Amino acid sequence: MDATERLKKDYPWIQTPLIVQAPMRLISLAPLAVEVWKAGGIGFIGAGTDVSTLSSDLSTAQSLLQSSPTSSTTAHTLPIGIGVICWGASLSEALPSIQSYRPAALWLFAAKSISEFSTWATEIRRVSPQTKIWVQVGSVKEAVSITKAVKPDILVIQGTDAGGHGLVNGASIISLVPEVHDAVQELVEKERVPEPVIIAAGSIVEGRGAAAALALGAAGVAMGTRFLASHEASISKGYQNEVLRASDGGQTTVRTKVYDTLRGTTGWADTHNARGIINRSYGDAMSGMTEEENRRLYEEEVGKGDGGWGVEGRMTTYAGVGVGLIKEVKNAKEIVEEVRDAARRVVERLKLERLDEKGSKVKL
Amino acid sequence: MDATERLKKDYPWIQTPLIVQAPMRLISLAPLAVEVWKAGGIGFIGAGTDVSTLSSDLSTAQSLLQSSPTSSTTAHTLPIGIGVICWGASLSEALPSIQSYRPAALWLFAAKSISEFSTWATEIRRVSPQTKIWVQVGSVKEAVSITKAVKPDILVIQGTDAGGHGLVNGASIISLVPEVHDAVQELVEKERVPEPVIIAAGSIVEGRGAAAALALGAAGVAMGTRFLASHEASISKGYQNEVLRASDGGQTTVRTKVYDTLRGTTGWADTHNARGIINRSYGDAMSGMTEEENRRLYEEEVGKGDGGWGVEGRMTTYAGVGVGLIKEVKNAKEIVEEVRDAARRVVERLKLERLDEKGSKVKL
Repeated sequence: MDATERLKKDYPWIQTPLIVQAPMRLISLAPLAVEVWKAGGIGFIGAGTDVSTLSSDLSTAQSLLQSSPTSSTTAHTLPIGIGVICWGASLSEALPSIQSYRPAALWLFAAKSISEFSTWATEIRRVSPQTKIWVQVGSVKEAVSITKAVKPDILVIQGTDAGGHGLVNGASIISLVPEVHDAVQELVEKERVPEPVIIAAGSIVEGRGAAAALALGAAGVAMGTRFLASHEASISKGYQNEVLRASDGGQTTVRTKVYDTLRGTTGWADTHNARGIINRSYGDAMSGMTEEENRRLYEEEVGKGDGGWGVEGRMTTYAGVGVGLIKEVKNAKEIVEEVRDAARRVVERLKLERLDEKGSKVKL
Repeated sequence: MDATERLKKDYPWIQTPLIVQAPMRLISLAPLAVEVWKAGGIGFIGAGTDVSTLSSDLSTAQSLLQSSPTSSTTAHTLPIGIGVICWGASLSEALPSIQSYRPAALWLFAAKSISEFSTWATEIRRVSPQTKIWVQVGSVKEAVSITKAVKPDILVIQGTDAGGHGLVNGASIISLVPEVHDAVQELVEKERVPEPVIIAAGSIVEGRGAAAALALGAAGVAMGTRFLASHEASISKGYQNEVLRASDGGQTTVRTKVYDTLRGTTGWADTHNARGIINRSYGDAMSGMTEEENRRLYEEEVGKGDGGWGVEGRMTTYAGVGVGLIKEVKNAKEIVEEVRDAARRVVERLKLERLDEKGSKVKL
């Protein structure tokens, strides 16, 4: 069974190429995940480091799913996923909800160690065998050790272009996806490790990036930043406006620990930081302002509401380098359908531009 | 005329998808550029900041081209290119060689200003109207201002994954190529600016990356690092062995100014640094060793020959994040043919995995 066939078996409601809405803490909740499901994608509730509301989030999702006229054909799982940041989330607190709602997928990220990933995977599989284990990685080394130890169903390969948290150092998916693919194939052949399906993430916001990811060897794509500009995201207008405004993301976003520091989300290991739009907090930190003063100004800014965002603002605006390709807030369903259709058209274009053996371009 | 047709008109010996060998200072000389031409690619002599040997390099290239049994069909230009680093190279010194040898392309990089780029382009076009102007950019902003002012025939869009010099901050080609493409299209439509052909560079080392670049909207790809491991590169064994050894380039390479500082190549603007494999020079610089001491140790290492390269060595090893996909030294001709054929096969695979409207995968 190839990767696409496996995906269609495990998530029978999906359409291909598979579009995944990546979990975003506090931002991607049940309404967004369910809209993505309606469009034949896979949506994730971003539980992050706090699973105390997981049960109520899953209950909301279940209600939304049941009230949908296109209700799911699979009775075995709830056709959405949950994303957890393993170093901060409580496994024992999460398990009862997972056992009772059986989400289709658990996306694990940033455990303190490989064995912590293994514990999560083992326990989830014990209480809900139908739930598939997704693990997010950002390097070949991580991909190999996690594939061996955790035997994930899905490896999400995150390029360094991605918004929000990821490895401090990294590569884009251009070489990372093929290199991980080859390294994993070697494990599969030599050590009989079960083969994970590869999903690519990081600066994919539209059809061209999605088609590129398929060319690189991914079976589907995950997008976070693109869904910040969706009607169903739980996001302030100030933040969303910044996503629409920002362009040239290689110049206007940065990977840093500054925003985590100011917000007090300080449990992240030294290996991880996060990419966000450059604003005054970052500029002041780079100019040598003390952390104390910068945090005081940040906290003042929190009171300003939507006015606190922007180049001259101080509110954290996590986003990936692909932010410049996002021009409009849309329904999540429309985003999924558009990206999937556009990716199909790109494949069609490449096909029409058939490159023949003599090297001349033949229009079919 | 579309981009591929324009390429085939301007460079009649090429096969598509177009594979370009990027100019590498001191490393890509006439033998490499001519081998790439033999395979239907475009090879560049990396003149860099010093054009004093340009005339003799071009003379060597001409001899090699004339002695080839598959000698060029185009009499109007020498079917190779020249790469210059504008801030350091002397335009007046370069012009007579360009006028007398008429290279097919001049790749301009890192001028001090947009107007310096314009001066180079104008003067080259004056002395050799057949020579096409290529300009390398790393951001949407650069792409837009250069397209307006310089009207290049080709825009080389370099992702931050690339080895050697480029912008300090940047994006990979995943979003950069589409965003530049759209911004340039807008200029073409609104301001009637001539449309440049887009070539993508940065972490492309094999067929999957090349096919991805085509999906993103590039008409061809440029590779540097891949050609470091070619028999025709002018490169020491120690450096080449490192290119074969290194893997997981997101973790094992870094963008930094440290190597330039130690080697005394200090004319680069603050906006530019370079990506190389992490070694002791970099580690010591990060641990706070003085520049003076680090340079002394570097200069000592120079005497060690091939032994000076490696993780514990100090010799500069510029390479892109795609380095982990390079396993073997090959002939440049073979590299061009392999990457082109593999890219065609990837397009073929995507085509066979036709994604139908119902979302199921149909094998044709």
